[in-house]
Amino acid sequence: MQKLNVGILIFEDVEVLDFAGPFEVFSRVVSKDVMPKAQPTADDPDAPFNVFTVASTAEPVLAIGGLRVLPEYSFDTAPPIDVLVVPGGFGTRPLLENQPVLDWVRTTAEAASTVTSVCTGALLYAKTGLLAGRKATTHWAALDLLASLDPTIQVDRKRRWVDDGVVTSAGVAAGIDMALHVVESLCDKETADRTARYIELVRHAPDDRRY
Amino acid sequence: MQKLNVGILIFEDVEVLDFAGPFEVFSRVVSKDVMPKAQPTADDPDAPFNVFTVASTAEPVLAIGGLRVLPEYSFDTAPPIDVLVVPGGFGTRPLLENQPVLDWVRTTAEAASTVTSVCTGALLYAKTGLLAGRKATTHWAALDLLASLDPTIQVDRKRRWVDDGVVTSAGVAAGIDMALHVVESLCDKETADRTARYIELVRHAPDDRRY
Repeated sequence: MQKLNVGILIFEDVEVLDFAGPFEVFSRVVSKDVMPKAQPTADDPDAPFNVFTVASTAEPVLAIGGLRVLPEYSFDTAPPIDVLVVPGGFGTRPLLENQPVLDWVRTTAEAASTVTSVCTGALLYAKTGLLAGRKATTHWAALDLLASLDPTIQVDRKRRWVDDGVVTSAGVAAGIDMALHVVESLCDKETADRTARYIELVRHAPDDRRY
Repeated sequence: MQKLNVGILIFEDVEVLDFAGPFEVFSRVVSKDVMPKAQPTADDPDAPFNVFTVASTAEPVLAIGGLRVLPEYSFDTAPPIDVLVVPGGFGTRPLLENQPVLDWVRTTAEAASTVTSVCTGALLYAKTGLLAGRKATTHWAALDLLASLDPTIQVDRKRRWVDDGVVTSAGVAAGIDMALHVVESLCDKETADRTARYIELVRHAPDDRRY
């Protein structure tokens, strides 16, 4: 399998675990039964994913709670993205009115082979029309807002993640399960289970939504 | 309850979810049934914890997988820490020979009221003698190494986290459960459950270790 580029969008007031969970999962996948390595995924021949963060500019991004992250790429410098991850957080609300970011999300999603969101990242997909007519979910506190952004979306309130062409997940920690689902889809179940074991994560079935 | 300072150590090759999981949990706790806010925890009167990262210097820290984080404080500038979190990752191995970091860990732990580790962060506590005679755990791949660093440690291979004066957890994702346990201890069960609900995290019992 050719190495796939996983691009994770970060922005002011992004929720920490929304981007850090999928970052952890995709960067710790190895294609056979060896331990993941400390070296960057781009340099590890056993790593099927090359994982990086992308922000609108190269400036440090202040995540919710005050965590400050330096994006690896800006919109201008990012390489082609195969797997797009759009996390959520309060920062998604101002982005609903930020046309350059919405344009980047739409064009990057259209070029990607796998399009995913965590939590309220789904709102950005909804706003750009990417969820039209699809089943989708989001954080429990944003389900009505998701429905209001595009009435053609079939909002799913019962599942931890929904894969209907675009893969959307419930809030925050559900993004970890969603990322493992994508690993299982793009690699295989053994690889996803091995990754879960490495990070000592108990996987949930998609219909195991508790909140 | 007076706001408690939660200091999370970060270092070269720290595991992303090891520090991001507890950061997410502690920074999203609110002391009553309101939504957590986007503003920093230091400024939110409903936030019982003020959460920040600390590194040996103010330089950006390259975590495993290539995530680059700007520490909020260096050892020289950090405020007093009430709740210390030492995460793991491959970067803990060189730190076992880094006396300034070991000294900081020991003196900061001795001054803190709550001392915690995720994954192989426990190795640093073991090396500084903080786990002498205590029950403790770590990532499944490092249990033997933990035992070898201090033969008086009662290494627990069955629990997702162990609270024996020092709170140690199993690998990576187990740090999220560990942090919620600390929230429950310092606040109450309702507060911890509300935080878990906000981040859509299914809590595990301490004896629910799968790996």
